[in-house]
Amino acid sequence: MELTSFIVMDVLEKAKEMERAGEHVVHLEVGEPDFPLPAEVAEAAARAVRSGQNKYSQSMGIPELREAISQYYLSNYGVEVEPERIFVTPGSSPALLAAIKIFADEKGERVAYTDPGYPCYKNMVRFLGLKEVPVKVFEENFFKPTPGELKGFDVMVINSPSNPTGAVYSPSELEDLVKRAEDENFLIISDEIYHGISYGDRDHTILEFTDRAIVINGFSKFFAATGWRLGWIVVPRDKVRLMQCVAQNLFICAPTPLQYGALSFFEEAVVDKCRGYVREYKKRRDYLLSELKRLGFHINYEPMGAFYIFADISGFGTDGFSFSMRALSEAKVAITPGVDFGSNMTQRYVRFSYANSLENIKTAVERLSEWLKRS
Amino acid sequence: MELTSFIVMDVLEKAKEMERAGEHVVHLEVGEPDFPLPAEVAEAAARAVRSGQNKYSQSMGIPELREAISQYYLSNYGVEVEPERIFVTPGSSPALLAAIKIFADEKGERVAYTDPGYPCYKNMVRFLGLKEVPVKVFEENFFKPTPGELKGFDVMVINSPSNPTGAVYSPSELEDLVKRAEDENFLIISDEIYHGISYGDRDHTILEFTDRAIVINGFSKFFAATGWRLGWIVVPRDKVRLMQCVAQNLFICAPTPLQYGALSFFEEAVVDKCRGYVREYKKRRDYLLSELKRLGFHINYEPMGAFYIFADISGFGTDGFSFSMRALSEAKVAITPGVDFGSNMTQRYVRFSYANSLENIKTAVERLSEWLKRS
Repeated sequence: MELTSFIVMDVLEKAKEMERAGEHVVHLEVGEPDFPLPAEVAEAAARAVRSGQNKYSQSMGIPELREAISQYYLSNYGVEVEPERIFVTPGSSPALLAAIKIFADEKGERVAYTDPGYPCYKNMVRFLGLKEVPVKVFEENFFKPTPGELKGFDVMVINSPSNPTGAVYSPSELEDLVKRAEDENFLIISDEIYHGISYGDRDHTILEFTDRAIVINGFSKFFAATGWRLGWIVVPRDKVRLMQCVAQNLFICAPTPLQYGALSFFEEAVVDKCRGYVREYKKRRDYLLSELKRLGFHINYEPMGAFYIFADISGFGTDGFSFSMRALSEAKVAITPGVDFGSNMTQRYVRFSYANSLENIKTAVERLSEWLKRS
Repeated sequence: MELTSFIVMDVLEKAKEMERAGEHVVHLEVGEPDFPLPAEVAEAAARAVRSGQNKYSQSMGIPELREAISQYYLSNYGVEVEPERIFVTPGSSPALLAAIKIFADEKGERVAYTDPGYPCYKNMVRFLGLKEVPVKVFEENFFKPTPGELKGFDVMVINSPSNPTGAVYSPSELEDLVKRAEDENFLIISDEIYHGISYGDRDHTILEFTDRAIVINGFSKFFAATGWRLGWIVVPRDKVRLMQCVAQNLFICAPTPLQYGALSFFEEAVVDKCRGYVREYKKRRDYLLSELKRLGFHINYEPMGAFYIFADISGFGTDGFSFSMRALSEAKVAITPGVDFGSNMTQRYVRFSYANSLENIKTAVERLSEWLKRS
């Protein structure tokens, strides 16, 4: 088992060292909302833990939360997803592992994911001893695969809005993908963890186009609850029983008091607050995108979701890893080298996260600007 | 992937149906402490969630908790376990999955576990596509393997105190096992989740005898925090880096606010309270054990830990599954059929859990007594 580690950890380690030595670093490497968990939700969790909601829940999650998620699909996407198909999971990562295993068992061991893409997909495929099929995606196609490439595998994981590129699939692209999956006989796992953080039209779930896909989502990104490790998975009807077995054996259930707290995520005031977070992300994206272009980064597409900009640094005559390490030591700005996200031309890229305040992002831009002038 | 589901779920389903119809059922099938989470710990978690401890933690867990666990090994077992080898995990199940995969990768794909035993071991081996090696254990050997059977595999999962039998390995048995593992070239994963709940001498961790084993433990049983899904794993030094990769990819981190809450588990007053729970378990065991024998169950060994009695029902002229279903419908007592724990003579057994009040256990005994007289 050769799992690739996150090279950004080296960046983080060095950043911490610098901070211990008294230096100030702007963190644009972190894939985590800087906004706080809405206070209503924190209160609800505190109440739950105090009132004794500390026992095992059903392996599928508490019925009230599954019902609330079902309602969310109806109100948000206009799509009916019965609570019977929804499992609450301890974060979206174990949900993904289960999804990959379940679909590979049905269809075959060749599992595709985009390169660049979220590195855990590849590592989960390796952990399960399945076959990796990276599908190369390029900036000129907005980091989305072209239909012709969608073949030669049994399962595909897609991620829209996407980490690290901010690519968002349109409804017609999702529809084409579903059609393609039927024609080429593969199954789709749609990682929708960044849903809600997008800057064009509303996000579309793959479930608007098919109920044969598995959907992964959770409370970490739009709802700003990363540390709660609370996600969910929607499976096709004929996989409910198997998923239940997998849940019972792999994680028993998600943390009970946090499940009760999570009921408050669906209160209107809370959803509004989270939508406010997204308006802030958009301001930051607009600012950072135009500034990075001005500084000489090549960014020939518009990231439409998540909170990342995947920027081509080849104009600076170096590779993304060296660029990241020097940006840290010389400009005191931490960013993630592109190689963390695959091997398809990723040495030409770095990832900026704008999950940080506009003020800090402005400081970062000033520092980068001066540093690039000096270099 | 053929995961066996828990047949006790059928029992539970039927029990719920009966309860919906207004009937009173005594639950002796549940593997979960009936005692509450100590209030000090609930308060600490409520404070953490309110004070904003809701972001990702380090993938290994917060340093304070790892340090506290390390201290617990020193004070409880007199053994030094550096915090660098301890990972906090979202429950002990994902820790077990990681442990099996990591050791199978090092040594080979044949993974042994006792039959009867905790059914998730087998299912995790299946989930990972590895080879199952059940090691038959028998009541006449107190449900522990004899040395001669400890060969022909690469990894062995042991569980002491054991679910479903309450078997506890003595220090010399653990020492012999370690010696045997060296001689026969296999690696040991020691699931110590029931540690602290035992009725003879103190429990002994395998780490007192070797640092080449992986240890699984958590806050669910002795500390009565099942719904928190918070466990830990201790790995050998040379596996720390790999375990870190696995943690980052499989679950990112354990729930942060609950990790902060868990710091309070190690307060003296809390540990004392949990020790009080164990004294109660012992009273129940003593009572239930003698009553079951009186009623005609064959129990020719003394369960020394956990909160289970694995009782031979062959004297009643039926199998464990039918016995469980009839005990439920006719005596209104829910118990777990032995077949949930393997295939080695398990049809002759049922599992009683005494994680229920002495009063309820007495009611169950009265009901069983009357029912058995009638039958």
